Amino acid sequence: MAPISDPYGSRSSKDAAIIARQEPVVYTDYESFDNDEIRGRVKDFESDGYLLIEKLFSDKEVEALKDEIKELTDSDEIQSRDETFMEPGSRSVRSIFRIHELSEKISELIKDPRLLDIARSIVGSDVYVHQSRANLKPGFRGKEFYWHSDFETWHIEDGMPQMRALSCSVLLTDNDATNGPLMLMPGSHKHYISCIGETPDNHYKQSLKKQEYGVPDDDSLRFLANKCGIKTINAKAGSVVFFDCNTMHGSNSNISPYDRQNLFFVYNSIENTLQSPKYGLTPRPDYIAAREHFTVLRNS
Amino acid sequence: MAPISDPYGSRSSKDAAIIARQEPVVYTDYESFDNDEIRGRVKDFESDGYLLIEKLFSDKEVEALKDEIKELTDSDEIQSRDETFMEPGSRSVRSIFRIHELSEKISELIKDPRLLDIARSIVGSDVYVHQSRANLKPGFRGKEFYWHSDFETWHIEDGMPQMRALSCSVLLTDNDATNGPLMLMPGSHKHYISCIGETPDNHYKQSLKKQEYGVPDDDSLRFLANKCGIKTINAKAGSVVFFDCNTMHGSNSNISPYDRQNLFFVYNSIENTLQSPKYGLTPRPDYIAAREHFTVLRNS
Repeated sequence: MAPISDPYGSRSSKDAAIIARQEPVVYTDYESFDNDEIRGRVKDFESDGYLLIEKLFSDKEVEALKDEIKELTDSDEIQSRDETFMEPGSRSVRSIFRIHELSEKISELIKDPRLLDIARSIVGSDVYVHQSRANLKPGFRGKEFYWHSDFETWHIEDGMPQMRALSCSVLLTDNDATNGPLMLMPGSHKHYISCIGETPDNHYKQSLKKQEYGVPDDDSLRFLANKCGIKTINAKAGSVVFFDCNTMHGSNSNISPYDRQNLFFVYNSIENTLQSPKYGLTPRPDYIAAREHFTVLRNS
Repeated sequence: MAPISDPYGSRSSKDAAIIARQEPVVYTDYESFDNDEIRGRVKDFESDGYLLIEKLFSDKEVEALKDEIKELTDSDEIQSRDETFMEPGSRSVRSIFRIHELSEKISELIKDPRLLDIARSIVGSDVYVHQSRANLKPGFRGKEFYWHSDFETWHIEDGMPQMRALSCSVLLTDNDATNGPLMLMPGSHKHYISCIGETPDNHYKQSLKKQEYGVPDDDSLRFLANKCGIKTINAKAGSVVFFDCNTMHGSNSNISPYDRQNLFFVYNSIENTLQSPKYGLTPRPDYIAAREHFTVLRNS
């Protein structure tokens, strides 16, 4: 019997490829949902690969979260942790990983039914947190984040078997055209871009600052952008963007004086836990990809 | 008698300063104009420091200009010229200077009455070309251009005496939030930001790629952005943006697959020709700042 080959091979060839998605986007029979609002949202997610819900959290909730983030980023203890990444060539915090375990408030947020009900409706099972982080793209000096599919990285570097995870970005500042907002290609989640080249071991420290591996090629990106268009997220603080693990996304730099902060949570199905990374790569630390220790989320 | 001091000193101190504009924005009595449309436009320019005229050139005219630019950028002779600057770390052309003298078609365009009538109405005299260039911010890899006032550079490095010049950007591609469009601070032209630090000699080769001198400080930029807001130019190819020489502007990076091309012309009053650069700096080449050779523009 021939071995079952990986439909989502990547970084192992000199050629790029565009591969059709093998599995569903939504793992529940959402047409049968009683709740019209959730049904409509999940349906949009199925076709677009993302879902923007404006002002899901109140100004008061946002302020409390920003206060919490400020306390964390100001802390010497937090700044010195492995979970914390700085902007290249600067003393500004760029990201804090595993933030839902470093903060009680964010631990509550990640279980909030406004987020969790959507996540479960999409992956069709209980979920756990594959990754969490605060993204703090600072004003004036926030760098661009090049186009990528999260799943490509999680599949190759973390051994995530299937596309059965979704990301959730809780906007803590207003996002508009001036401050390097999230850009998504709607519908791109149905195409997997197999990337050119190899992945050196232990490159994650660098790649979280500046990507060099798992970068889609120009032709594939042009194909997707022409087919799907590019949606720029223009939304107020407190809004939430959910997007499929395979949705192509990125963001331009931020020279505006205004920070672009969000909390980023990845909900993965408990039926999609990590296997070994591809190509014998060393597993990334648990704070980047929960492998050894995680907790199934229950409503807060 | 005390020497007359320069109101627009910059790069000579450890402190930044915000200095009120000393001279008019518009040098004609535009309220007396017979033409309602031009009067309205000039009035907007006076208050906002910029003017967007949508679709001033037809699709056919834009296509002809793009063909011309493509012919120039493909030319080995043009690529090897001093006037041509490449994207850092790439073989893509970023800018071609003095383009109105390298191309007959662009020489005609720069004298087009649709541009020239506005320029003359604003500076209140005949004009000549202080600088011209094609800007070819390429898709995927177009870098950001940090906030700056052109006048700060032209005053210090080129010895332009007064704020009596305006820039004009003819959009050759659609500009929207995805491809690193021009951002302007409306009303910022009435404030001059004196920058911190010194300017080394002959730094222009580098500064056209990546600015390090004449960079406004964070506090001044935050003051201006909070006071003026940030306008992002979202307009179709063929549209034209005029902006005052002292309007604070910049642009984010461009990771979209779509190039952001424009033709950029600087019209200066013939009563505002260049003096010596400040601080004994060596004058920049004529193709960057016309000093020795220029022609007063007559309608094409």
